[in-house]
Amino acid sequence: MSLISSSAVQQHNNRDSCWIIVHGKVYDVTDFLDEHPGGSKIILKYAGADATEAYDPIHPPDAITTNLPKEKHIGAVDPDTMVKVVKTVTDEDRRRQALMDARPPLEEILNLHDFEVVAKRILPDKAWAYYSSGADDEITIRENHTAFQRVWFRPRILRNVSAVDWSHTILGNRTSLPIYISATALGKLGHPEGELCLTRAAGKYGVIQMIPTLASCAFDEIVNAAVPGQTQFLQLYVNRDREITKRYVQHAEKCGVKGLFITVDAPQLGRREKDMRMRFVGDDAGAKVQEGQKVEKNQGVARAISSFIDPSLNWDDIPWFKSITKMPIILKGIATWEDAVLAAEAGVQGIVLSNHGGRQLDMARSGVEVLLEVTEKLRERGLWPNPNFHIFVDGGVRRATDVLKALALGASAVGIGRGFLYSFCAYGQDGVEHAFKILRDEFEMNMRLLGITKLDQLRPEMVDARALTAHSVPTPSDNLFGQIYQPLATTQFKESKL
Amino acid sequence: MSLISSSAVQQHNNRDSCWIIVHGKVYDVTDFLDEHPGGSKIILKYAGADATEAYDPIHPPDAITTNLPKEKHIGAVDPDTMVKVVKTVTDEDRRRQALMDARPPLEEILNLHDFEVVAKRILPDKAWAYYSSGADDEITIRENHTAFQRVWFRPRILRNVSAVDWSHTILGNRTSLPIYISATALGKLGHPEGELCLTRAAGKYGVIQMIPTLASCAFDEIVNAAVPGQTQFLQLYVNRDREITKRYVQHAEKCGVKGLFITVDAPQLGRREKDMRMRFVGDDAGAKVQEGQKVEKNQGVARAISSFIDPSLNWDDIPWFKSITKMPIILKGIATWEDAVLAAEAGVQGIVLSNHGGRQLDMARSGVEVLLEVTEKLRERGLWPNPNFHIFVDGGVRRATDVLKALALGASAVGIGRGFLYSFCAYGQDGVEHAFKILRDEFEMNMRLLGITKLDQLRPEMVDARALTAHSVPTPSDNLFGQIYQPLATTQFKESKL
Amino acid sequence: MSLISSSAVQQHNNRDSCWIIVHGKVYDVTDFLDEHPGGSKIILKYAGADATEAYDPIHPPDAITTNLPKEKHIGAVDPDTMVKVVKTVTDEDRRRQALMDARPPLEEILNLHDFEVVAKRILPDKAWAYYSSGADDEITIRENHTAFQRVWFRPRILRNVSAVDWSHTILGNRTSLPIYISATALGKLGHPEGELCLTRAAGKYGVIQMIPTLASCAFDEIVNAAVPGQTQFLQLYVNRDREITKRYVQHAEKCGVKGLFITVDAPQLGRREKDMRMRFVGDDAGAKVQEGQKVEKNQGVARAISSFIDPSLNWDDIPWFKSITKMPIILKGIATWEDAVLAAEAGVQGIVLSNHGGRQLDMARSGVEVLLEVTEKLRERGLWPNPNFHIFVDGGVRRATDVLKALALGASAVGIGRGFLYSFCAYGQDGVEHAFKILRDEFEMNMRLLGITKLDQLRPEMVDARALTAHSVPTPSDNLFGQIYQPLATTQFKESKL
Amino acid sequence: MSLISSSAVQQHNNRDSCWIIVHGKVYDVTDFLDEHPGGSKIILKYAGADATEAYDPIHPPDAITTNLPKEKHIGAVDPDTMVKVVKTVTDEDRRRQALMDARPPLEEILNLHDFEVVAKRILPDKAWAYYSSGADDEITIRENHTAFQRVWFRPRILRNVSAVDWSHTILGNRTSLPIYISATALGKLGHPEGELCLTRAAGKYGVIQMIPTLASCAFDEIVNAAVPGQTQFLQLYVNRDREITKRYVQHAEKCGVKGLFITVDAPQLGRREKDMRMRFVGDDAGAKVQEGQKVEKNQGVARAISSFIDPSLNWDDIPWFKSITKMPIILKGIATWEDAVLAAEAGVQGIVLSNHGGRQLDMARSGVEVLLEVTEKLRERGLWPNPNFHIFVDGGVRRATDVLKALALGASAVGIGRGFLYSFCAYGQDGVEHAFKILRDEFEMNMRLLGITKLDQLRPEMVDARALTAHSVPTPSDNLFGQIYQPLATTQFKESKL
Repeated sequence: MSLISSSAVQQHNNRDSCWIIVHGKVYDVTDFLDEHPGGSKIILKYAGADATEAYDPIHPPDAITTNLPKEKHIGAVDPDTMVKVVKTVTDEDRRRQALMDARPPLEEILNLHDFEVVAKRILPDKAWAYYSSGADDEITIRENHTAFQRVWFRPRILRNVSAVDWSHTILGNRTSLPIYISATALGKLGHPEGELCLTRAAGKYGVIQMIPTLASCAFDEIVNAAVPGQTQFLQLYVNRDREITKRYVQHAEKCGVKGLFITVDAPQLGRREKDMRMRFVGDDAGAKVQEGQKVEKNQGVARAISSFIDPSLNWDDIPWFKSITKMPIILKGIATWEDAVLAAEAGVQGIVLSNHGGRQLDMARSGVEVLLEVTEKLRERGLWPNPNFHIFVDGGVRRATDVLKALALGASAVGIGRGFLYSFCAYGQDGVEHAFKILRDEFEMNMRLLGITKLDQLRPEMVDARALTAHSVPTPSDNLFGQIYQPLATTQFKESKL
Repeated sequence: MSLISSSAVQQHNNRDSCWIIVHGKVYDVTDFLDEHPGGSKIILKYAGADATEAYDPIHPPDAITTNLPKEKHIGAVDPDTMVKVVKTVTDEDRRRQALMDARPPLEEILNLHDFEVVAKRILPDKAWAYYSSGADDEITIRENHTAFQRVWFRPRILRNVSAVDWSHTILGNRTSLPIYISATALGKLGHPEGELCLTRAAGKYGVIQMIPTLASCAFDEIVNAAVPGQTQFLQLYVNRDREITKRYVQHAEKCGVKGLFITVDAPQLGRREKDMRMRFVGDDAGAKVQEGQKVEKNQGVARAISSFIDPSLNWDDIPWFKSITKMPIILKGIATWEDAVLAAEAGVQGIVLSNHGGRQLDMARSGVEVLLEVTEKLRERGLWPNPNFHIFVDGGVRRATDVLKALALGASAVGIGRGFLYSFCAYGQDGVEHAFKILRDEFEMNMRLLGITKLDQLRPEMVDARALTAHSVPTPSDNLFGQIYQPLATTQFKESKL
Repeated sequence: MSLISSSAVQQHNNRDSCWIIVHGKVYDVTDFLDEHPGGSKIILKYAGADATEAYDPIHPPDAITTNLPKEKHIGAVDPDTMVKVVKTVTDEDRRRQALMDARPPLEEILNLHDFEVVAKRILPDKAWAYYSSGADDEITIRENHTAFQRVWFRPRILRNVSAVDWSHTILGNRTSLPIYISATALGKLGHPEGELCLTRAAGKYGVIQMIPTLASCAFDEIVNAAVPGQTQFLQLYVNRDREITKRYVQHAEKCGVKGLFITVDAPQLGRREKDMRMRFVGDDAGAKVQEGQKVEKNQGVARAISSFIDPSLNWDDIPWFKSITKMPIILKGIATWEDAVLAAEAGVQGIVLSNHGGRQLDMARSGVEVLLEVTEKLRERGLWPNPNFHIFVDGGVRRATDVLKALALGASAVGIGRGFLYSFCAYGQDGVEHAFKILRDEFEMNMRLLGITKLDQLRPEMVDARALTAHSVPTPSDNLFGQIYQPLATTQFKESKL
Repeated sequence: MSLISSSAVQQHNNRDSCWIIVHGKVYDVTDFLDEHPGGSKIILKYAGADATEAYDPIHPPDAITTNLPKEKHIGAVDPDTMVKVVKTVTDEDRRRQALMDARPPLEEILNLHDFEVVAKRILPDKAWAYYSSGADDEITIRENHTAFQRVWFRPRILRNVSAVDWSHTILGNRTSLPIYISATALGKLGHPEGELCLTRAAGKYGVIQMIPTLASCAFDEIVNAAVPGQTQFLQLYVNRDREITKRYVQHAEKCGVKGLFITVDAPQLGRREKDMRMRFVGDDAGAKVQEGQKVEKNQGVARAISSFIDPSLNWDDIPWFKSITKMPIILKGIATWEDAVLAAEAGVQGIVLSNHGGRQLDMARSGVEVLLEVTEKLRERGLWPNPNFHIFVDGGVRRATDVLKALALGASAVGIGRGFLYSFCAYGQDGVEHAFKILRDEFEMNMRLLGITKLDQLRPEMVDARALTAHSVPTPSDNLFGQIYQPLATTQFKESKL
């Protein structure tokens, strides 16, 4: 196929004929303009030009080739004809650089919260909105974290805790920590190297990474960045076209991926209003509402990238998955003991008690709360404990103590998603490594303080989880009384002397 | 009857002889001045002149003809003698217009809360006070919403949710949504077209509207605005004069109204202090309190318009209602299982578990909380489930998830009042339609996430309502400790570099 | 006894010989200077002069005659020799007058909270501190009010509530409201006419007043201000000298007082730190702490006026009280069912479940909470219901609904102290009358909304008090998480257009 | 050994050869520079010079002799050769002096909170951070105090409480108060005289002091400051070298110490992030984070001074302790009934239910909560009550009422650490004495109000502790609703008149 000159592309710079260049390939997106989940306007900005830089952070690498019919793939652009764009430094670039210069040195990052503070300030608003948003009123996203505060410790004392070991096994694979990196989408919104920051740090520290279907980096890139013997899992959104899914899964297995985590709580991606509101930022603020005008607009990044997900996925599909892969199959997104029983009976190797980081059904319960009923009911039925059926938990984890609580209550391991995502936004791979070190220190200390030297010494009676299912919502406040009551004051210094 | 000239009316412009014009008719209100629930001052402002514009938004259309004896109906004014009033644009008009210009386009309204934000800012203070106020300390009005947050979901996964259907039947009438528009008074305070905004949108979207007794628009106007086949219900305040009530009910039935919702929780309209305080705004701030002066003043809009309601209404009246209409009879405002049992035994077709939007008895419980005890006790007595006895719930609904919770717990449908009222304040009929679309989207998504494709698949075990009856009120805060404790800080950017 | 000239008194103007004039009588307080609970400094300010104006608001009228030995009563001053003091108008006088001019007219006072707001602003700081303060951390004073918010209503509907009657009987005496004015000390701190404001309003409205031992007005003044047939009770602090107590009680009985409420929860008056801190205001701010200096200072008004109270009072004293009076005896300040049983067995006519308005033992429970256990245990023992044994409750009442809750749970009547105290601070007798009218309106409406026409129709099942004994204290807040979480925003107006 | 001249020391003023003078002795710390838990930089600042003033407040007196090998102890400096340093007054000195001048006089300190307010303002930031910090999210440090608010009183009335006695016996030793001064480290950070302030005040007031292993003052200094007959206990961190521990314990016993409290909840000192963040204050804010740089820094004061503590300490060590001392042995830091049973079975004389002031394992429960389960389970096993096995509680105490609650629930006595520590920061010994007087007054009054005259009259039924194990964490707040709801307003003054 002969190369296409840049000037030829530039002819197609309008709504009637719109070509764009992405990664050196030319695409005719004229017919696609109105279907673009992100709206036509943003595409038209790059009509006849190279859109790669805008495309990259918010699309999985194969989004365009998958969504655009073959016949619209025009060909490769002639690189020699591309005008070298002198990238001008924008105010936004300068703002970000100033923030990067002023960010705290890694040694001052004492816990995973600190990474979140830094990311919140450094990320562009839209990226922060996409990463941090939850469904509807965001009750569940916060409850995920809050739930851990309803589990108290019952530590044991006077045990020899000189040597403490927090290494662990997940689905038969060794790991230096009893956690895994859970899948989160679109890593390049946070850092130019995206998910590779995780892969490289995980390889160095012996931590298991779950590769997301909606990664910004290509699957092969991520797999290839692994060191020999590094364990990776795959998170799977099931495509309406099962052949695509089959190829994807089998390719992953061939590449050495060690576990298949099928997302089952997202037949449709949730409404995340922070993300949705970002769509309106920068729009023409003067646009008048006209009676009867068509008001449909895109619905945030999440909706835009997820239209391929199959809402018909159901229990009958499980045998098929078992037929196409030998990887252990884990159902990610179980929220009741009833479904946990079905999963165990379906012969999968495990489940993740999860609500998708609070991004799907708002007011779903936290994974750690569901863990209580799941272990109880599975045990009653003789389905658990079972070396071939694992219960994982994710959501809201910020501290090693959160992990230790879940393990004490029966979890095999705990997934952390945003915690690691935020750790690379401002610091890249170094941030992720520092996050591992923080957790390692926290595990060491807190295992000592709990009186254990190995994780298998954790017992349910080492926590008091009686408050976990209690959902307190205070009665509305008494405003009249509250406006009148004058809080007690403490003693006062003589200000005249100061 | 001969016409009366405008100048003749103008002679009666004082306390000794006071005539006013409303909708082209002349009334002698001299003797009524001291009885006017809104005080005499406001009437005297229009003595001898046309009061229609001030009258309209805060009176039901027939208020004056009902309350004023026939002999005070002087006759029709001669329209040719009316001075054309050149309406001057006031500062308030300009303020409102500026707000209307700046209001968010409908596409940016993402949920029912957003409508409320817009209405709060755009409405005149007195209208906002009337709409938004609740009884006494407003504990119940807020509890109505808060109660839903004590009900958590137990969603099911791996079910084929490709096709989801949220249409429903209410009292045998099809509806596109499992909700109905509940009655709220005085719609013209919010928008010049008042309740017609609701009627028209409801007709277009297949939603059922409950027509309020205290509508700003005339009953016939509202009925006539319906499209063929559109279902409407009637909310009824029972008049001390039962003949008036009989005529009203039978007229409604003849007009095709499909259900009679008799309000039973308002023998006297509640004290709503926000509304009451508005009575003093704009008064002569310099008025000195004189010892012993008569301090009675009107008590807000609610009291002013409700003096006709009969506080003697009781169970013995039910057979009479059954004798005057064939419409299904629903008692609106049940608050205990004991009264639910009495209602079922009385042979009515249903009940609404409601506390009148928190506007009557403060510290009454929310409808959704009462639903728990009502279904339990009716079931114990074999009175429910019963295709001829329906349990509805209203109060505090903002999200489709709130509705789904109530349906899971046994409600036949859910009423939404203020939610739709606020939706037309700034946007008229378009706002109501947009509200329907928002709910439609929310139903679709959340049914998928719950793992159901039809509403009859909802089950009590899909929610965890154990916390619903728990009324937590924190112990008073520890102010000395709180003033001393220094909250943990996160890591800091180097500000010198920014 | 011959009169003493003013100039003779002026000779005794120092620590070595200190005379003062109070109400035209001369007293030699030289030896008393160091014993004065309020410190010597304040007395020395008036040495040789007339101290009446400073004495009056913070001393019971007979404080000086009671505490000072007879031989120190020098005699009467010759009025003709008294220099007419031209009272200069101070800044404070002007400030207070401006506030009085600007205070809301009574018609704008919608509830008892409003009186409190006005009093808080108009009262001198020290008076506000004395009235409003509670013990230690003021947990109980607030809990008293908060407890009522844990009791929810279960109102009944469809009952004929045309005619509603909220009159009542307390200890056999008719009252227009089911409440009584509970005793509070030092009324003149709030208004020059002190407790008489209550007496006169109570007489006019048929409400029962409990006369405090520590009133600012003399007992006889209060009794004499009553209208014929007006009922009054007496609150009693028992004196270490029982003869004084006996004379006081028998005098009250002779004057027609109808009930004796003996305070049993104050063997020592509580530490009220707001009140105590006021002692330091206006002191020499420059005083250096010297190592080892004597740091005892007076401990607030409460301690200063209560040294006569007998901490040895105990159950063995009850027969003696029964021997000296035929008035019904009520023990005020019971806090457990155990003591309620002892009281019933001791043959008194009733008890007040009270914690002294939160001014004594902090973290004592509220009266309405104690009511639950008291009625249950007395009933178990066959001691209640009993027409000769009454259970009263006080503390934290602001609304008629609070009263209705207590009555539903078994109280015979409810005491309101501060509520009425605050009502006269800015408005005198008129304020108290307005408070009665507010309560009357609230009783009328809320009885209708509860579905009752007489108070004896109240039943325990009309309230849901299950949460009353639940004392929720939230786990300390999660500050790191809280600092990071960005609350959801609502839709925004286009500010550029405004 | 001959004296070393100051100028000789000055030669060793760099990293290659670094000598310092501490208390007149010369040490060669060259090899120790990199091991110093506080970093080398701070030592090098004093290289070749006298470091005593910087050394004293943050090191136990024998830290340098213990940690530095004998051969590095160079000898004594010749005092005649020391240059008299003219201490310049710094801005910080001036700021502190101004604060000291303006501090409230002791008579204005009404409760232990007040001491904390003063200390917070007067202490250098690093001292405040060290004293006030807790582990991780500081949930436990605050819960310690909050827990007491979940215990309510059930006071008895009509008992003769004229004479009240709050003296007590702890492990057979008389004390004037039922509390002891619990061990806290590094008292000189707060006051130049450090722990001696406590010793002297305790001696004067008959209170028992527990001497901390990590005191700023030398053990002998503290013991020698005691008056004849004054009781002291010893808090022990067990050294990796048991010989050191043995010598220390036996020396203490010989000096008359009456009880050995072995800390068992600190195999490793906790992460206290406030303390850790202080390490970065004053650092070069311009230091750029370089990829891969070594980011280890010291981890706060706590870690720096605790490396000697033995994490292998376990139950098998108990017989050894019993073999080396006759002092009663108390295990400090028990957190479950299981370990309480083990302790009773191991034959020690008691336990302290404690979480180390919230400084070790975050989300451990408060001592007073653990007390409930410990007394219940020990009683079930017949191990308690037992005159030879005592249960102590510490953590979060601010009021005598806190102590009375713990005693009612079965504690033998209660430890107060920070409460007394803060009392001497600004006031020295006088502050501690004033703290005793405050507690004494609180005990007197609250015992009266509880209806007891001696502490042994306290009974479990005098408190309602049902809420103690309830750990309420509110559901995340409803931000949209909360932003819209307009709180009720009270009545308003006419501002135009003010």
